[in-house]
Amino acid sequence: MSEHAGRPTEESSGGHEVAERVRVSFARQGLMRLLGAEVVEVGEGTCVIEVPFTEGITQQASYFHGAVTGAIADTAGGYAAMTLAPPDREVLTVEYKVNFLAPAHGEKLVARGEVVTSGRRLFVCRAEVSAVEGRDERVCAATLQTVSLSPARAPDRKPGA
Amino acid sequence: MSEHAGRPTEESSGGHEVAERVRVSFARQGLMRLLGAEVVEVGEGTCVIEVPFTEGITQQASYFHGAVTGAIADTAGGYAAMTLAPPDREVLTVEYKVNFLAPAHGEKLVARGEVVTSGRRLFVCRAEVSAVEGRDERVCAATLQTVSLSPARAPDRKPGA
Amino acid sequence: MSEHAGRPTEESSGGHEVAERVRVSFARQGLMRLLGAEVVEVGEGTCVIEVPFTEGITQQASYFHGAVTGAIADTAGGYAAMTLAPPDREVLTVEYKVNFLAPAHGEKLVARGEVVTSGRRLFVCRAEVSAVEGRDERVCAATLQTVSLSPARAPDRKPGA
Amino acid sequence: MSEHAGRPTEESSGGHEVAERVRVSFARQGLMRLLGAEVVEVGEGTCVIEVPFTEGITQQASYFHGAVTGAIADTAGGYAAMTLAPPDREVLTVEYKVNFLAPAHGEKLVARGEVVTSGRRLFVCRAEVSAVEGRDERVCAATLQTVSLSPARAPDRKPGA
Repeated sequence: MSEHAGRPTEESSGGHEVAERVRVSFARQGLMRLLGAEVVEVGEGTCVIEVPFTEGITQQASYFHGAVTGAIADTAGGYAAMTLAPPDREVLTVEYKVNFLAPAHGEKLVARGEVVTSGRRLFVCRAEVSAVEGRDERVCAATLQTVSLSPARAPDRKPGA
Repeated sequence: MSEHAGRPTEESSGGHEVAERVRVSFARQGLMRLLGAEVVEVGEGTCVIEVPFTEGITQQASYFHGAVTGAIADTAGGYAAMTLAPPDREVLTVEYKVNFLAPAHGEKLVARGEVVTSGRRLFVCRAEVSAVEGRDERVCAATLQTVSLSPARAPDRKPGA
Repeated sequence: MSEHAGRPTEESSGGHEVAERVRVSFARQGLMRLLGAEVVEVGEGTCVIEVPFTEGITQQASYFHGAVTGAIADTAGGYAAMTLAPPDREVLTVEYKVNFLAPAHGEKLVARGEVVTSGRRLFVCRAEVSAVEGRDERVCAATLQTVSLSPARAPDRKPGA
Repeated sequence: MSEHAGRPTEESSGGHEVAERVRVSFARQGLMRLLGAEVVEVGEGTCVIEVPFTEGITQQASYFHGAVTGAIADTAGGYAAMTLAPPDREVLTVEYKVNFLAPAHGEKLVARGEVVTSGRRLFVCRAEVSAVEGRDERVCAATLQTVSLSPARAPDRKPGA
């Protein structure tokens, strides 16, 4: 509903840098590796994460486990916020709410996160997760999330924030 | 805040049966296996799940990943609901909200789920997740969750569920 | 993010009927009257509600009270669901989450609710609330909501419930 | 579930002062007056708010409107946080989630808010709302809420907000 621009930032050098920071941070997340998740796109205020189906990440009926859905939605929203954060700050999820909309069944899950509003200390983000099977794509979850900026390294040396 | 009785049901034969159903369902969840999670207690309207620390389930700062916290809280709440559900019905998480209260750092996480209210079609549950290190235990997340009962007939060949 | 069509339904006779049901139900809500709220648009899966500024509905800093924001967002989402429900059924809010995004300051608040997904028993809806001052419009809240259909027959005459 | 002490603070002079600040702030909330709500107890990290039944605050079935339930739960949680905040700071609700557990029917609603955890910038609170009819009391809603401390300097007079 909100029109967030969400232009991919890869082209500009600033965009490169942000996308690189996202990827470095992501690579350090043991759980994302365990799930087989990947960052497939990073934009200005947006982030897309995918995870292919594997037996290891199911619930009792062989669908994707809701926790996987929640995990990549949370992560996509958090990294969407990071793209708008000063480079020396961490982003932390304060809380999120997820609604499961349909069974998550298919060859992969795709979580598209975007920043709804950004403040000096808090971001509100949302994400939608779709299950993809061939050309079919079905929205299976929606989240609304609050993300905070960590205090800067030295308490408050924040040039632009 | 609500006084849910939550007596362990293991002693009674009905309790045994319910606890057994929970464990059978849990054992079929690939993700719970992948995370190394275990059901450690099942009561009437309650369920406790633990997951030991391993490198594979961290976020970028070597704490437990928030998604693990969310996963076991969601699961503990869902199985708490299952203990009050008719034996031929599945329980499904409709939605949940999780607040992260403190860094999840320690040798294991413990999620304690309980049913707040149970209706004919919907349960409201909550869970608290604590990080345990030796004798220290620190609450690191709280959830509030809506769980629905599946329609009585089983959709797709699940023998024991 | 989801593309819900949301065509205004006023033109068609079915649309008229639905809009009429929404207005009749709305008119019976004492609180909406007290707040001075009005339904300004009803579509297929959408509903827009406005409330003008009055001294009576402020918080301590003379902005619109968050509860007013929450009330019209909840109501806009609920009636959006009602437009897709069978005529003999009531819709009930199971739960919602609201994020306050900016101070709600202006001459009126506008809540735009829409159905994200509709199931047999549950709808997931969202709403955005904007504060309007002249030509300026600023999004000040976002909600994600679960709405249930009441059972077809009025349930069980509960005097004391 | 969390053991927050919540001793009433009225006795101590510090407690008096905090309770007074809560009452002064509350008295400036036009909406609370409109609803007929009252602060009936203020403790250390707790706050209880009541609202008597009147025709003006109903939904379409003559129960208390969900928005009233949400409003007093939000407010009880927010003021619970204020009791733990430095005296020169405002508290603001970042977001909350409310589950409606039972129809809100009776002579009054009582919202009991408590702080779950308090940080330097954020509080997590929860509240339960009960409908009271004579000696019967029934929990009808539960909330989980994030509250932030405003920056130290005073808020109101912000030109562009």
